[in-house]
Amino acid sequence: MTDAHVVGSGIVDFGEKYEWSFDDLLEGAYLDLVESVDHGINPTADIDAIWYGTLDIANEGSSGAAVAHATGLFEKPATQIVNACATGSDAFRNAVQAVKAGDIEVALVIGAEKMLDSTEGLIGGAALERLWRGRGVTMPAFFGMRATRHMEQYDTTREQIAEVSVKNHENGTKYPHAHQQFECSVDDVMESATVSYPLNLYDCCPVTDGACAVLVTNDERSREFTDAPVRVAGYGFSTDSFMRGDDLALTNFPASRQASSMAYERSGYGPDDVDVAEVHDCFSITELITYEDLGFCEQGEAGAFIDEGIPHLDGEKPVNPSGGLLSKGHPIGATGVAQIAEIFEQLRGDAGDVQVPDAEVGLQHNIGIGRNATGAVSCVNVLER
Amino acid sequence: MTDAHVVGSGIVDFGEKYEWSFDDLLEGAYLDLVESVDHGINPTADIDAIWYGTLDIANEGSSGAAVAHATGLFEKPATQIVNACATGSDAFRNAVQAVKAGDIEVALVIGAEKMLDSTEGLIGGAALERLWRGRGVTMPAFFGMRATRHMEQYDTTREQIAEVSVKNHENGTKYPHAHQQFECSVDDVMESATVSYPLNLYDCCPVTDGACAVLVTNDERSREFTDAPVRVAGYGFSTDSFMRGDDLALTNFPASRQASSMAYERSGYGPDDVDVAEVHDCFSITELITYEDLGFCEQGEAGAFIDEGIPHLDGEKPVNPSGGLLSKGHPIGATGVAQIAEIFEQLRGDAGDVQVPDAEVGLQHNIGIGRNATGAVSCVNVLER
Repeated sequence: MTDAHVVGSGIVDFGEKYEWSFDDLLEGAYLDLVESVDHGINPTADIDAIWYGTLDIANEGSSGAAVAHATGLFEKPATQIVNACATGSDAFRNAVQAVKAGDIEVALVIGAEKMLDSTEGLIGGAALERLWRGRGVTMPAFFGMRATRHMEQYDTTREQIAEVSVKNHENGTKYPHAHQQFECSVDDVMESATVSYPLNLYDCCPVTDGACAVLVTNDERSREFTDAPVRVAGYGFSTDSFMRGDDLALTNFPASRQASSMAYERSGYGPDDVDVAEVHDCFSITELITYEDLGFCEQGEAGAFIDEGIPHLDGEKPVNPSGGLLSKGHPIGATGVAQIAEIFEQLRGDAGDVQVPDAEVGLQHNIGIGRNATGAVSCVNVLER
Repeated sequence: MTDAHVVGSGIVDFGEKYEWSFDDLLEGAYLDLVESVDHGINPTADIDAIWYGTLDIANEGSSGAAVAHATGLFEKPATQIVNACATGSDAFRNAVQAVKAGDIEVALVIGAEKMLDSTEGLIGGAALERLWRGRGVTMPAFFGMRATRHMEQYDTTREQIAEVSVKNHENGTKYPHAHQQFECSVDDVMESATVSYPLNLYDCCPVTDGACAVLVTNDERSREFTDAPVRVAGYGFSTDSFMRGDDLALTNFPASRQASSMAYERSGYGPDDVDVAEVHDCFSITELITYEDLGFCEQGEAGAFIDEGIPHLDGEKPVNPSGGLLSKGHPIGATGVAQIAEIFEQLRGDAGDVQVPDAEVGLQHNIGIGRNATGAVSCVNVLER
């Protein structure tokens, strides 16, 4: 049985890309990857299969054939994966499994989303469609309720929640592909317009177009593409319900706890071993919750964890050096792939102004809330150089 | 490295199921599977992960969490696969790869679609959206052009095309889960209303709701669930473009040729070894084309192949004993899974009135035309008892 390794990545700058077609986004990330593979790649000969993550919000790509056309990679299996906001991570996971199965040697993983062409205003208004939307449970409301509960139950302060946005926006100013590159203070966050109490505008990730790609291969071929492959040490994926009377589900995401437990068990690493993490901060509160779900701190201690500066770029365990979803943006199909790409760069020492010194073990975390209102999926990957 | 085996299947009768919710369909197929596993199953303990195929036409399930809710199978990875009309087959393929990778032991594959709740009239009107729909290239037109070209190039007759519908409707009257259970003659087909010349109403599959599930496991555990597992001997999956100047692409599907070549090579079986096949007959002409693409006959010889009765239920190589998409129906996410389920039953001798005597090797074939107008995906599985 072979391991899977990330051996290349490519990205198009995240942002408002009205002038880019869906194919342009896919092609852009793909070409950036092809051009950046250390030892070069002959894509038609080398790439055996493609996993392609998109919710297809602009409704242009419901099939693997979409990515084949954008890249010119025909005569290969090409699969579209959908898994709410964890779509990109699950595309990566399916590619990793196929490489491990030995049926293919080299997989292209590519995620893309045109969010701004959607008339739904997806992040703001949709998502909890079937049961709850008519009752006002939009995504900000759903996460806002978790924030108020966390504040009530653990004395988490509004300022601690805002600190996540402050940190990630500061990181984003140093990350070249981030969408919203501006710094903001705790006061700025707390004075920005209310979206759904207690979450204000700067507590919410922007609506962003983007695409990202990574290349995955097996033990035997990894050194063919680079002298510095990044090994997928372990992954976990889980699905949960919000309908069960689980107290943790009101302040946390049990699926993230299950997924990270699986990833830690498979990789042999624990939370203390993680040198750098990219985690799902669709809202500021989500990142606080995630510190606890991943075991970076105890339940209820997330506020103190950020107060102490631990997840800051110069802290003991930097989280979201890329600026996270809050600054970089959250083009859904691309999000998880871009997190993997950033950890890949961090573990190779290629992360430029957001480089975490001597990062050897990185963690990627991505959650998704099912449109049918009641389920969360969560994906965690542990990678090592 | 383990092989993958099918060890159970479940289905809800295909048809017009306005009174069934999307969850009802998923739950129905799942419970039918659970109840029919020969040696029983403890789903919560036994099932490690789920692959879930749907185009989500009724827009209720964009995430793996949808299937978790319908089945109650939480705390497991659940992935939604989308690949045009081959969605169900690709869900099966990803599950097979995960089992072979050894990361999981038992996978549930489930496909479902509520076609009739869609206001798009998907089969009739949509599909080739971006470039061609405005120019009249609906799905029937797309396949109609292949029919006229096949007739022109190989002297295939209109009657030979109609014979496919006659055969499959006759089979469908004997298959308990088929949607449109009526017999029709060549004259009936040729006198039914024109949809897109030369294809008439009875040359087109109906618009059908449905769901189907299969259980996949590894070598070690297959006998735990049944004394008669069905081995996945080999699979192939490919993606093609219609934009290339390939003559075969006008009368055939190069992706099907590539996918079947891969499946034959991996399985060690060739077209002559196939005892029974379930193939993609979204339109009557599609099945004729597929005889050639799968190597059941030479290029241009499909008309003679059916004239000789070879693909009939009592012929040398029965094709679509279940009635195929033409009679059984084509609820997109469920279609490929239902083909696998039928081959599973055939190879176990459980296929009732449509049983092919002594079937030892079965083939399943499913194509999809990408909504972005120019790509086809094709999946072929070879299974053996």
